[in-house]
Amino acid sequence: MGSDSDLPVMKEAAEMLKSFGVSFKMTVISAHRTPDRAFSFAKEAQSKGIKVIIAGAGGAAHLAGVLAGISTLPVIGVPIQSPALRGVDSLYSTVQMPPGVPVATVAINGAMNAGILAVQILAVADTDLQEKLKQFKIDLEKKVLKKAEKVEKSL
Amino acid sequence: MGSDSDLPVMKEAAEMLKSFGVSFKMTVISAHRTPDRAFSFAKEAQSKGIKVIIAGAGGAAHLAGVLAGISTLPVIGVPIQSPALRGVDSLYSTVQMPPGVPVATVAINGAMNAGILAVQILAVADTDLQEKLKQFKIDLEKKVLKKAEKVEKSL
Amino acid sequence: MGSDSDLPVMKEAAEMLKSFGVSFKMTVISAHRTPDRAFSFAKEAQSKGIKVIIAGAGGAAHLAGVLAGISTLPVIGVPIQSPALRGVDSLYSTVQMPPGVPVATVAINGAMNAGILAVQILAVADTDLQEKLKQFKIDLEKKVLKKAEKVEKSL
Amino acid sequence: MGSDSDLPVMKEAAEMLKSFGVSFKMTVISAHRTPDRAFSFAKEAQSKGIKVIIAGAGGAAHLAGVLAGISTLPVIGVPIQSPALRGVDSLYSTVQMPPGVPVATVAINGAMNAGILAVQILAVADTDLQEKLKQFKIDLEKKVLKKAEKVEKSL
Amino acid sequence: MGSDSDLPVMKEAAEMLKSFGVSFKMTVISAHRTPDRAFSFAKEAQSKGIKVIIAGAGGAAHLAGVLAGISTLPVIGVPIQSPALRGVDSLYSTVQMPPGVPVATVAINGAMNAGILAVQILAVADTDLQEKLKQFKIDLEKKVLKKAEKVEKSL
Amino acid sequence: MGSDSDLPVMKEAAEMLKSFGVSFKMTVISAHRTPDRAFSFAKEAQSKGIKVIIAGAGGAAHLAGVLAGISTLPVIGVPIQSPALRGVDSLYSTVQMPPGVPVATVAINGAMNAGILAVQILAVADTDLQEKLKQFKIDLEKKVLKKAEKVEKSL
Amino acid sequence: MGSDSDLPVMKEAAEMLKSFGVSFKMTVISAHRTPDRAFSFAKEAQSKGIKVIIAGAGGAAHLAGVLAGISTLPVIGVPIQSPALRGVDSLYSTVQMPPGVPVATVAINGAMNAGILAVQILAVADTDLQEKLKQFKIDLEKKVLKKAEKVEKSL
Amino acid sequence: MGSDSDLPVMKEAAEMLKSFGVSFKMTVISAHRTPDRAFSFAKEAQSKGIKVIIAGAGGAAHLAGVLAGISTLPVIGVPIQSPALRGVDSLYSTVQMPPGVPVATVAINGAMNAGILAVQILAVADTDLQEKLKQFKIDLEKKVLKKAEKVEKSL
Repeated sequence: MGSDSDLPVMKEAAEMLKSFGVSFKMTVISAHRTPDRAFSFAKEAQSKGIKVIIAGAGGAAHLAGVLAGISTLPVIGVPIQSPALRGVDSLYSTVQMPPGVPVATVAINGAMNAGILAVQILAVADTDLQEKLKQFKIDLEKKVLKKAEKVEKSL
Repeated sequence: MGSDSDLPVMKEAAEMLKSFGVSFKMTVISAHRTPDRAFSFAKEAQSKGIKVIIAGAGGAAHLAGVLAGISTLPVIGVPIQSPALRGVDSLYSTVQMPPGVPVATVAINGAMNAGILAVQILAVADTDLQEKLKQFKIDLEKKVLKKAEKVEKSL
Repeated sequence: MGSDSDLPVMKEAAEMLKSFGVSFKMTVISAHRTPDRAFSFAKEAQSKGIKVIIAGAGGAAHLAGVLAGISTLPVIGVPIQSPALRGVDSLYSTVQMPPGVPVATVAINGAMNAGILAVQILAVADTDLQEKLKQFKIDLEKKVLKKAEKVEKSL
Repeated sequence: MGSDSDLPVMKEAAEMLKSFGVSFKMTVISAHRTPDRAFSFAKEAQSKGIKVIIAGAGGAAHLAGVLAGISTLPVIGVPIQSPALRGVDSLYSTVQMPPGVPVATVAINGAMNAGILAVQILAVADTDLQEKLKQFKIDLEKKVLKKAEKVEKSL
Repeated sequence: MGSDSDLPVMKEAAEMLKSFGVSFKMTVISAHRTPDRAFSFAKEAQSKGIKVIIAGAGGAAHLAGVLAGISTLPVIGVPIQSPALRGVDSLYSTVQMPPGVPVATVAINGAMNAGILAVQILAVADTDLQEKLKQFKIDLEKKVLKKAEKVEKSL
Repeated sequence: MGSDSDLPVMKEAAEMLKSFGVSFKMTVISAHRTPDRAFSFAKEAQSKGIKVIIAGAGGAAHLAGVLAGISTLPVIGVPIQSPALRGVDSLYSTVQMPPGVPVATVAINGAMNAGILAVQILAVADTDLQEKLKQFKIDLEKKVLKKAEKVEKSL
Repeated sequence: MGSDSDLPVMKEAAEMLKSFGVSFKMTVISAHRTPDRAFSFAKEAQSKGIKVIIAGAGGAAHLAGVLAGISTLPVIGVPIQSPALRGVDSLYSTVQMPPGVPVATVAINGAMNAGILAVQILAVADTDLQEKLKQFKIDLEKKVLKKAEKVEKSL
Repeated sequence: MGSDSDLPVMKEAAEMLKSFGVSFKMTVISAHRTPDRAFSFAKEAQSKGIKVIIAGAGGAAHLAGVLAGISTLPVIGVPIQSPALRGVDSLYSTVQMPPGVPVATVAINGAMNAGILAVQILAVADTDLQEKLKQFKIDLEKKVLKKAEKVEKSL
């Protein structure tokens, strides 16, 4: 994440990864305030065994794009809601990448989905994760069905 | 893609996949006009050996989200530029997914990047593709350097 | 509605229908989290005697569009205000439907109007409801006139 | 429609109604330039046998809302694309109606869908139109399937 | 004003008019909920001695435009901040009037300025009001200068 | 106007004034490029017999606001459509004035309406202009009625 | 700053300048409410020894542009977040300046950055400030690294 | 500039610098496609005698921000108009920088102003450039006055 103020949002990605048993590392890297760190992190990520990068940042949210410019790993971008423009700035800065350098962007503050997307990417070559994702979808459905029942009874 | 009018944009994804030697299938599936087809496509995608889905649509662009609701495969969404709102509608409809169902969204009309992202996802378990991606990045850099030279000389 | 968190908004539609004596069913159906349920609901709606569908959803609000893609019933869409983009995303995702599949969209959080619109649609073939709508309009006018008086006196 | 410059868009609604065999009248009524005409049209619409009103207007698009304020008939609003703001103004002016007075809004320039929505509304009490709508949906699907085939072969 | 909920904003216009000694009437007229009242108010305004109309409304804010369509008096529109879209909808609905029917639009919630503008319009033929406006401008300047002093000392 | 490139738009105001027999002066004054001229123009406007100011400008459209800050005359602002943001920037820069200094803003490129509004303001104390405005409204209505007839026959 | 209500934001610029040992003056100047003061301030700024101007204003934020139109000094504009449009109006009014008259615009409410930018401009000819800026960047980096450590441990 | 496609816009900055006799270098550096080059350019800029950086980029326009994150030189950002979102994305990505790392942003496509701003910054310690800037302002004014004359005569 680009700032420790993004932690309340980004920890949802961590929790999701944890629930799928995927090991991960979480830290603060600012494309603007720690450019060396961003640079070396992206350069070394793959050789350190990292398979997917999740980058959350707000405002002129360059972090995901900068990492994607350096690394060939899939980079998931989480636009963090910003105080004035409510995350439209973060969204455009994350998603509108030029040809050649994609960022897999999720919803504003969509860190939970960033975690799931990372699992889906890893599951491409991991049948165990594939099964867990199917179970996750079933559980998701069940939760909504339970709520549906409750709402129907509320009338 | 959601409509054959999206072909001029979406074929850039196809070309990118071709250039990486990744086999793919391209077709038209409308979440609104062929819901059965969308439904069965998503239901059967994984069992048919599909590993990543790229979905391009414009306006109230529901295709990527609908497929992601049914399948556990990673779904990449390409918001297609729309005539009136120029793709802001397509972008919001594609990226603002609810918790539990991510769509990996790329830039408006960013089909080329959708292709690259698909390759990056497949490369997580394919060292050959990893090498090709590194070469792609080097070539991309070279092209810009050549342009830089040209611009410098233009003064 | 797409989520039970939409209930505080959507119950205004229910109250309006109740006040007109129109029978209805209210439940939670998520286009993304319960796609099977959405699919079968829309497929069977007409045969079950449903005449109008009201669908409220927020963010990438696909529910109304997905139901309208499957059923030939009139579908009224209520874009629910979203936390970051305040419902612009919900509005665009609901209203910008492609040619062939309309969604009758009302204002952001406009569930009360969705109820009235449903009554207006049913009233096309129900003179009793037509009379009730005329009375509703007269009452609405009276309420404003009373407020007008109050404001005039407040000076 | 609010202006004869809206004709190229609005005639798509007319064509759709014609293709369903629904009789209709098409004219120009401006909420701002012919207020008397707008007023008397809305007052008398129901007694003249009109069952659904389709109103297309651009910019500060008040026509649909003004008619809906006077008549209890269902009013479908078509926001026409405007030269500067590309129809965002028309959309907001049409859809953001206050509680009590709904306008069933379709997409910017979505006149064809306005026609279909009108048919769906009339079909609530007309089994013949219901059958035609089902056939229309099947034809729509077929057209997309044909295009899908063509796109698949284009590879 | 279009609704009594607009009173906290619109009373600033009233206070401004009072402070300039301009007589006025304040009431609630809804273009959508009391169309007859809106119609007759606008038709009779000039003959009743009204010289300028100030109309405040939010959302699909049609009030100013509807009155301007009927009366030839100058109509000042105050777009009221709306809950979801924060007044962008009100602004576009008020200001984007078609050729032939102007609305003199002030800022979102700018009722105080609507009052001043009304005074400026009346002052075109009233030298007494002209003098008062000059004094108002001098007082405004003085207030800012006093604040400037305070801020300078705060260092 | 702020630039001679605004002439094609702003001359519509001139034509409107001419058609009402209102004398006027048209020139280029840039708040940013000719600040002295803007300053002295506004300072001296009233004493030179000017009764209403119409100011058209695009982008960071400060002209109307700057003149309104100096003069107590009513200032009508015409936001000119800008190449990138299509006039949203011009509109916000013109209309969002702070309390105390109103600008009577018309639609983007709404110079014709600026002319009419100026006439309406002058008509407050000119019964001859009042009559002309009524005739103008009648003619406007007639034109629309003629178009209505044509559209009705076109079916 | 354009209003004393901007003080909570603008004092961050003052604090930054203070921390760099740069002398400055802070006051309130309104382009709209104290035009004479704005005019003479800009006219005399350079001769009074001022080297950089920072101007913060909200809404139709003309202050920076007006000063830049008169003075040849670099003018830094701080768009202040506004109540309704959250600063989009302030941003467009500040940044969209016409060719010939630049305003160096920072983020909405970005007064701290305005202070740093002023220091960077002064540092062009001041090696002492250059060293301080380098130290500032190092400190900034350290702060982020400390936060990174804390976040890493929080897992 | 971030891409050679930005040349038609960015050369206006070059022309402006040339006309002021300021030496400069123009090249292509992509934050995303040539990250090493961007990194080393920014690291070495000051030691190579560069005093001000102008960075133009479109879409997710990270170039200016990335350079400003590494160098302590003043960085001027030019948001380039983008095909879909017309430069709103470029503007937000350039201007909404986090506290600590300012980018001096000019208008969308405002490269000419970027050149002038660079001259203004250099002029802080260069009386010769100060004189040239004053002359430039005078010439600018004269040009507008000539156009004003022409427009006045055109009536």
